[in-house]
Amino acid sequence: MSDSDGEPAVIASGDPLGVLSGSPLDDRQGVNDAHLREVTVSSEQVYRGHFLDVRRDVVRLPDGHTAAREYIVHPGAVVIVPLLDGGRLIVERQYRYPMQRAMLEFPAGKLDGLELPFACAQRELSEETGYSAREWARAGVMHNAIAYATEGIEIWFARGLTPGPRQLDAGEFLDVEVMSLDELEDAARTGVLTDAKSLAALLWLRRWHDGAWPLTWLRPEAAVLPRQDVPS
Amino acid sequence: MSDSDGEPAVIASGDPLGVLSGSPLDDRQGVNDAHLREVTVSSEQVYRGHFLDVRRDVVRLPDGHTAAREYIVHPGAVVIVPLLDGGRLIVERQYRYPMQRAMLEFPAGKLDGLELPFACAQRELSEETGYSAREWARAGVMHNAIAYATEGIEIWFARGLTPGPRQLDAGEFLDVEVMSLDELEDAARTGVLTDAKSLAALLWLRRWHDGAWPLTWLRPEAAVLPRQDVPS
Repeated sequence: MSDSDGEPAVIASGDPLGVLSGSPLDDRQGVNDAHLREVTVSSEQVYRGHFLDVRRDVVRLPDGHTAAREYIVHPGAVVIVPLLDGGRLIVERQYRYPMQRAMLEFPAGKLDGLELPFACAQRELSEETGYSAREWARAGVMHNAIAYATEGIEIWFARGLTPGPRQLDAGEFLDVEVMSLDELEDAARTGVLTDAKSLAALLWLRRWHDGAWPLTWLRPEAAVLPRQDVPS
Repeated sequence: MSDSDGEPAVIASGDPLGVLSGSPLDDRQGVNDAHLREVTVSSEQVYRGHFLDVRRDVVRLPDGHTAAREYIVHPGAVVIVPLLDGGRLIVERQYRYPMQRAMLEFPAGKLDGLELPFACAQRELSEETGYSAREWARAGVMHNAIAYATEGIEIWFARGLTPGPRQLDAGEFLDVEVMSLDELEDAARTGVLTDAKSLAALLWLRRWHDGAWPLTWLRPEAAVLPRQDVPS
């Protein structure tokens, strides 16, 4: 893998990226979108299952008419790009019921309650693959179903990996595999890898590997050390 | 843009890619996933809105236990990468209510009833941007919410573009813009472009531009010519 992004930044105090102190998923506002905006008139929960929270809102359109908007309220999620020291990557094969087949994908999972995305990334990598990482970098965020879900998925890179025991949730079954970037890109090109969050993560991996999209690496254990350099 | 993928293939008869004769969205089976498979025990429609069709199935897990799976049945969609002759790209800004903001994205839309993805791509490009294309290439398919939706989104490239009048649906409001690949990649890197289908399309665009992932270009008007070379 490229090291063009230089040495890891050890964040011993402060939190320049906002990732440790609880930044929400990126929701920067678009520019000059007032003429496109839809305004909520009413909102109703139409289904509340074990997993899905479905809403039906009435909105006022830019031309003054009203329309219905149906969507899922989702807590957000993370996807992790786990880099082994030789440059190969840890991936999973997991049965995805709506697809009716097992899917090749990067490790990923939903935020648990008020969990921060970075904590979720650490937890999911450990639970699903057994690996813990010495260094982490937040690449970005994607929104995977902008027409019908609030979901945002943060993309995290992990390196300096140490293996350990997996701790799958009850009812969770998945295989862990190791693939090279070339193999993953071949899988994407030939239609074997079709999971959108993994494809977006692969774009980040490709551009980082090209030296075009640098990452800022964090060492989480350093971030929680007491500050020694500031008189109390 | 790269021309490493050579001259367009004129498909005057036959349909080697299956795109004109109605191939379904790619659903190739995974290898050796029997030990991961979930088997349907029962299925129930729990919400049927104007847009969302929500199901709740009970499944038998690989260990014999049962679990619930909630998901959306979706007809499928397309996203289009429209290449202007100079290499710049046509993109849109559209208000996406679940995001509560306008999103930068490639033109896209849902399949209409039994519409084929290729027909949908031609229709959506024309309706939303006004452009029609002389050549088309199917890059691949992505699945954007594999935990809770059946949706597949085919990625199509379009070039040889001719402008025309837009024909937006009632209640549809969106801006059309032109951006370079560099500008789009900057938008992705800096968190301005976060739409997952557009990021996956951008991965294809980047790899095609690199000469790594060739495309096979079709001229749709040639495909509907009567075959002259076969005696009737």
